[in-house]
Amino acid sequence: MDNVLEFIQKRRSIRQYQKGAEVSDAQVETLLRAAMSAPSAGNQQAWAFIVVRDRARLEAVMTVHPYASMLGTATLAIVVCGDLSSQQYPGYWVQDCAAATQNLLLAAANLGLGACWCGVHPRPEREEGCRKLFSLPEHVVPFAVIAVGVPAEQKAPADYYDAARIHHETW
Amino acid sequence: MDNVLEFIQKRRSIRQYQKGAEVSDAQVETLLRAAMSAPSAGNQQAWAFIVVRDRARLEAVMTVHPYASMLGTATLAIVVCGDLSSQQYPGYWVQDCAAATQNLLLAAANLGLGACWCGVHPRPEREEGCRKLFSLPEHVVPFAVIAVGVPAEQKAPADYYDAARIHHETW
Repeated sequence: MDNVLEFIQKRRSIRQYQKGAEVSDAQVETLLRAAMSAPSAGNQQAWAFIVVRDRARLEAVMTVHPYASMLGTATLAIVVCGDLSSQQYPGYWVQDCAAATQNLLLAAANLGLGACWCGVHPRPEREEGCRKLFSLPEHVVPFAVIAVGVPAEQKAPADYYDAARIHHETW
Repeated sequence: MDNVLEFIQKRRSIRQYQKGAEVSDAQVETLLRAAMSAPSAGNQQAWAFIVVRDRARLEAVMTVHPYASMLGTATLAIVVCGDLSSQQYPGYWVQDCAAATQNLLLAAANLGLGACWCGVHPRPEREEGCRKLFSLPEHVVPFAVIAVGVPAEQKAPADYYDAARIHHETW
């Protein structure tokens, strides 16, 4: 059991990265492979991903998202999107994308990388900003921007266990 | 990298369980500890969990959810709920709960258990059925029912990698 929690709790929101440090294409592929291994409603996989390494574009994201300043030192970002054209079970794409994002973050942490989930959906102004910046078609909704880099900060394992949030048999 | 993907791809939707097999309270605590180690918007942790072992109640869930027949052999279910009274960032509780659910599923698979995510939110009729069955207060929304048991089926690692879903720099 210890190894299981170790893997999961290794993930923390890392916001400071070693500027200019390399994250290889192979590592990025592992992150995306992890993301696409998530469950989705009826296995509809209503997701898509944009890998952003261009520095000017990363800076531009910071102008349309109020809490993405960590992109200043991130090596890259992955924009997780909902692809509504893949939706067979309406309304579930948000959950699909969140599960994929969580897989991606866990993979990053356990590869020794640092990552941070910057929420976009359901904030209309952030969605609109990302939509323009990445020329998204109508059927694609920007869900989140994930900053990725080599950590320049260390954090202890996360453990937010709260017995008060657990009920038995009924509320 | 291989170990990272191994951990993540071990998770499959398991729907057949060994009837009557034991899942210990310690294992359930590990599942819930994993769930609560998920990130959430501003760390708001807008979630709550109901552990259901009572056989009559598990059968009752099957009457309010059209795709939960695997509860017939599951040892228990965990009902993941959104707790809107914990919400500081409106609209993000769905993502919080999905990330927590994904952590729970990964922990189950890597403990040698089988689990399956049965979506409840945003289907009004499933929400209403669960709301009554578990006497949920107004501020609590049933998000998903997770069936948990000892697997009676084996599945190969999940790998839904699809290069067509990956874009670079822009759409």
